[in-house]
Amino acid sequence: MLIVMRKTADSGDIERVIEVIRRLGYQARPIPGLDRTAIGIVGNDHAIDPSPFLSLPGVKEAIPVTKPYKLVSKEFHPLPTIVNITSCGRTIGIGNGSGLVVIGGPCAVESEGQLLETAHAVKEAGGHILRGGAYKPRTSPYSFQGLGEKGLKILARAREDTGLAIVSEALDHVVYDLVEEYCDIVQIGARNMQNFSLLRRAGRSDKPVLLKRGMSATVEEWLMAAEYIVSEGNPRVILCERGIRTFCKHSRNTLDLSAVLFLLKETHLPVIVDPSHACGVRDQVIPLSKAACVIGAHGIMVEVHPEPEKALSDGPQSLNLQEFALLMKELEKVQALCGDESSVPRIGICAGSV
Amino acid sequence: MLIVMRKTADSGDIERVIEVIRRLGYQARPIPGLDRTAIGIVGNDHAIDPSPFLSLPGVKEAIPVTKPYKLVSKEFHPLPTIVNITSCGRTIGIGNGSGLVVIGGPCAVESEGQLLETAHAVKEAGGHILRGGAYKPRTSPYSFQGLGEKGLKILARAREDTGLAIVSEALDHVVYDLVEEYCDIVQIGARNMQNFSLLRRAGRSDKPVLLKRGMSATVEEWLMAAEYIVSEGNPRVILCERGIRTFCKHSRNTLDLSAVLFLLKETHLPVIVDPSHACGVRDQVIPLSKAACVIGAHGIMVEVHPEPEKALSDGPQSLNLQEFALLMKELEKVQALCGDESSVPRIGICAGSV
Amino acid sequence: MLIVMRKTADSGDIERVIEVIRRLGYQARPIPGLDRTAIGIVGNDHAIDPSPFLSLPGVKEAIPVTKPYKLVSKEFHPLPTIVNITSCGRTIGIGNGSGLVVIGGPCAVESEGQLLETAHAVKEAGGHILRGGAYKPRTSPYSFQGLGEKGLKILARAREDTGLAIVSEALDHVVYDLVEEYCDIVQIGARNMQNFSLLRRAGRSDKPVLLKRGMSATVEEWLMAAEYIVSEGNPRVILCERGIRTFCKHSRNTLDLSAVLFLLKETHLPVIVDPSHACGVRDQVIPLSKAACVIGAHGIMVEVHPEPEKALSDGPQSLNLQEFALLMKELEKVQALCGDESSVPRIGICAGSV
Amino acid sequence: MLIVMRKTADSGDIERVIEVIRRLGYQARPIPGLDRTAIGIVGNDHAIDPSPFLSLPGVKEAIPVTKPYKLVSKEFHPLPTIVNITSCGRTIGIGNGSGLVVIGGPCAVESEGQLLETAHAVKEAGGHILRGGAYKPRTSPYSFQGLGEKGLKILARAREDTGLAIVSEALDHVVYDLVEEYCDIVQIGARNMQNFSLLRRAGRSDKPVLLKRGMSATVEEWLMAAEYIVSEGNPRVILCERGIRTFCKHSRNTLDLSAVLFLLKETHLPVIVDPSHACGVRDQVIPLSKAACVIGAHGIMVEVHPEPEKALSDGPQSLNLQEFALLMKELEKVQALCGDESSVPRIGICAGSV
Repeated sequence: MLIVMRKTADSGDIERVIEVIRRLGYQARPIPGLDRTAIGIVGNDHAIDPSPFLSLPGVKEAIPVTKPYKLVSKEFHPLPTIVNITSCGRTIGIGNGSGLVVIGGPCAVESEGQLLETAHAVKEAGGHILRGGAYKPRTSPYSFQGLGEKGLKILARAREDTGLAIVSEALDHVVYDLVEEYCDIVQIGARNMQNFSLLRRAGRSDKPVLLKRGMSATVEEWLMAAEYIVSEGNPRVILCERGIRTFCKHSRNTLDLSAVLFLLKETHLPVIVDPSHACGVRDQVIPLSKAACVIGAHGIMVEVHPEPEKALSDGPQSLNLQEFALLMKELEKVQALCGDESSVPRIGICAGSV
Repeated sequence: MLIVMRKTADSGDIERVIEVIRRLGYQARPIPGLDRTAIGIVGNDHAIDPSPFLSLPGVKEAIPVTKPYKLVSKEFHPLPTIVNITSCGRTIGIGNGSGLVVIGGPCAVESEGQLLETAHAVKEAGGHILRGGAYKPRTSPYSFQGLGEKGLKILARAREDTGLAIVSEALDHVVYDLVEEYCDIVQIGARNMQNFSLLRRAGRSDKPVLLKRGMSATVEEWLMAAEYIVSEGNPRVILCERGIRTFCKHSRNTLDLSAVLFLLKETHLPVIVDPSHACGVRDQVIPLSKAACVIGAHGIMVEVHPEPEKALSDGPQSLNLQEFALLMKELEKVQALCGDESSVPRIGICAGSV
Repeated sequence: MLIVMRKTADSGDIERVIEVIRRLGYQARPIPGLDRTAIGIVGNDHAIDPSPFLSLPGVKEAIPVTKPYKLVSKEFHPLPTIVNITSCGRTIGIGNGSGLVVIGGPCAVESEGQLLETAHAVKEAGGHILRGGAYKPRTSPYSFQGLGEKGLKILARAREDTGLAIVSEALDHVVYDLVEEYCDIVQIGARNMQNFSLLRRAGRSDKPVLLKRGMSATVEEWLMAAEYIVSEGNPRVILCERGIRTFCKHSRNTLDLSAVLFLLKETHLPVIVDPSHACGVRDQVIPLSKAACVIGAHGIMVEVHPEPEKALSDGPQSLNLQEFALLMKELEKVQALCGDESSVPRIGICAGSV
Repeated sequence: MLIVMRKTADSGDIERVIEVIRRLGYQARPIPGLDRTAIGIVGNDHAIDPSPFLSLPGVKEAIPVTKPYKLVSKEFHPLPTIVNITSCGRTIGIGNGSGLVVIGGPCAVESEGQLLETAHAVKEAGGHILRGGAYKPRTSPYSFQGLGEKGLKILARAREDTGLAIVSEALDHVVYDLVEEYCDIVQIGARNMQNFSLLRRAGRSDKPVLLKRGMSATVEEWLMAAEYIVSEGNPRVILCERGIRTFCKHSRNTLDLSAVLFLLKETHLPVIVDPSHACGVRDQVIPLSKAACVIGAHGIMVEVHPEPEKALSDGPQSLNLQEFALLMKELEKVQALCGDESSVPRIGICAGSV
């Protein structure tokens, strides 16, 4: 942390800051400039709270230097985390050549027929994991809220039939227990990214967690949410970019591929992309998936429905089964471009779900 | 809902849309234009989901006409909701002349000494409700997380000593039970505004709920969150604007007073303002409080701490005790301007907390 | 500037940074920490460009410490700039007690009848300056673009008749010459806030300039735009907050009162508020004007039209003549609250328009 | 346009709206619903201004149905615009297989040596057009502002030496004349996207115009800016996405690939992408370029500098010469994926620069 003093600060003000730094157990390094003095703080092993300084007389600003996250940081843990999804025999987090993982399925599980038809099509086209909401977070209390445990059972049935792994969203502690029981991966949705109670719960599980970015979360806040899970004991966190809220009206959200690139550099956790929620329109799902793949994302998650026009939610952004097959073919071509990377041997710090 | 067809749509496309409208139980009203046809849907008594239409061939857009909220809408319930806070003898939701309610207190309950000192100062200066976090949602897992139930007990002690009502935040179902037991008002924070499971829990209580706006929530999403609570059976919802996330860096968030004015017109629920979180700097808290008061907000919630420079959280935006007293004097002057309004008799639909 | 090195940077990397600092004529102050080294730069008398450092090996970040603006900064020029508008005998920039300046008038000058009727009403109600666009920046090339010089002549006629000063917008150099000739204040609109060529032109004038904030300009960029004008020789700059673009749809823009408070502290230039463009709806104009006044803005600019429903532009956000009179009465009451401040003697650095 | 009435509107209110619709020369189509009436307007051949309706009693909302742009719309002109850049023998706007156009060069022309070295490297690596700012829009008046006409002469010399076409930015009318004289394409920068006076000037030229998206422009505003140019007589407009301003701090701006996909569908004008300004960091330029290519953008514009660490502006986001060569190789691979598309014969409506 760097404490910047006002031009008008006197030596008493500076002394007072130095004293507080010492009292907190750190060392102060004053840097007198022409106009003003700045004071560096060293000796801290994690991020320092600026509050005690900002309230002192003569202080203009406190500029953080150290990042607040640690366990999820590549600077501290350079080796990539590779999450094994044993039920489908895939790992998430290796280079995106042949390693790309594709998650497909409907927004919500609506019936056994709908889900099984989708599951078989996803499997056949080469997908790896089946998604499907059993408990849906809906903006309106009057919208379809999901089939609940019945939906989870249908998902489990689909896994049995197809060999796909399954992922579903947990909305609260009670649902977490159920999803953890039935599924291979538990999703924490964008609206719950800073539901710290739920994050702690996820940290006390050994099931992999798919953590979606909050609608207006900075990458730092997102990594801190992951830090909650990892610091509680579960290193199997998969980050999922799904678009951010901006002033734009032509798309549901704005897909932030720069965030993906930033994370691939900054964290050892796997990073996947959900283009369906990012754009909100079917036409854009295939091109944006290819874009995510070409920049090196570890996976793609898309919404697929046998009859999008009859879907109970997110129909306009769902691919139909033929479109999903087309997506897989397109992704295969794009992966061929990035092929070499996955051959590099890497050692994961994380054994994945047992 | 208005379905806008593409210029290239043919009569078959139009027929198909009309058929779907009928199948859903509504009536279709085609409006042929020079370039294209639009089709109005009537006969619905709540908002229509656009999904089934957006997936049909020839459809360009589906434009919602009806608002999706109902129970919280002033069009449906013109009389204002007035929430009685019996323990302090105040009501929230009447005109902001003499009726303005002021909530003050520290970000977090840190110790009995700190809270009682604050409580007495808030009471003496003319405040009505004491705030204080016992369970804190912190971005970092390494930051102070609150005293837990001990904090709630200290709050209850402060109420006993001063006659102030008390409010504290609930982070999950378990905490909700505790906060509901100890406090007069339960707060649902910005990060949980779309934690639908928690909103339903709040709806099954008869304690008033202070629902903060999510960091990037539209007013419509916010009202839908309130609709969750009200539709579940609890009409005692107080909306609290606390700034939105924008590109700005000079303030923590951007206070959206237009949202307050919009809500005062659109909903019968009381609307209060939290300038502390909106701006994030002590200097701006008093002026923004006055601004909120002068436009007619029903209440103000500010952070107050006996020694902001020693606060464990939010010190830079906390008023000290003298500043809180100054705030109250300033607000009194501003209220004198708006005085007449509160004399208008209004009948509330809600009996408040028992 | 503080250069933060990566954890992996070696002593060669650090030496290289120090060398570049010296070559640029500054002094380096290394601050070795536990994990990494940071290097302070001192001896600069203006902001340092981070580019040369960010490209060096081992450099993680370059954190600016000094603000990039100077002539408009209160730290450098503590006395307030007070702009005299001689033709109406008012000054802009003194405390907002009795000193508040009110600018009213239509979005566009449409006809002599429309403007004179408005001007007389503005004068009678107690307004000081008449606004009216003669050259309009319209999103669509097919919308009404203004009466041009004829509009400026009508404005001049209105000044003659009423004694109000007049302000109008300049879109380019050619228009600047004309507006400068006819008007007391030249407005540079939000869309041209970073039209640096036009800013320089404004700097070579001695007419006061009303500089609106760009739609998504940070306060720093806005102050730098003012710095362009002042550094070119014209100190008579009036800053006008008019709302920023956010994700919100309930208002045209989001009024940023925190920016006003920030500027009142950070710059010696006067700061006024345009609530009409901020909210975009008539209902909110009076309350937001009161909010701007109560927090200490030096002036208010609102759109007024004799028949808003027939206005060629911005009708929905224009007050009619009765509403403008009501606004003035309301503002008078609010000013009474802030009255004492204006009695404090202040010495302006700027003689105003001659 | 659809006029939505309030629930409380009476038949007189409805009659009044219908009357205004008729007076404006359109036809009214009332749609009575259960709760309220909506009134469709038909018979208009361009977008209708909502103002006259929003001010009438009983009107709740006016919802636009027709898009406001026309000449740039694919619905009106389905054939793609293909811009010929004769001096380098390329066209912009055909399918992105072999047709991708790459523009490279420094942010600013700094010297003949710097530019010629860059030009030769761009040519050799397979680039088509050389960029270089001679007149720079800089946030600070104290930053390097460009070499002016001398810079344009250096660009022309580079074209002569290499056969690359050249593009440079025009800041105002005077500069426009010069850039038009020297260059093959004139750039209008993000800050001038709504400088309508400059747009009209561009419309009176027959040189192709590269129109960058404004920092917070909606796609509709951007298309309307293009409509200004086209409606004035110049159909050779190339749209350039360069990132939008959001709350994010990890990148300079947020690249909006959804906007590119939207435009490829909505307009017949060519659309290119500038990843350098979008992300602001060198590391991300190559991956984002590949992403833009894979989704079908017609071109890429990147910043290239022989010694980025010595660049007078935008060094951190500039590729060096080796990196540019790498980019070209990577883009070639990506283009191979999309190859077939460009073989489809298309007929452009625009003959390009003569």
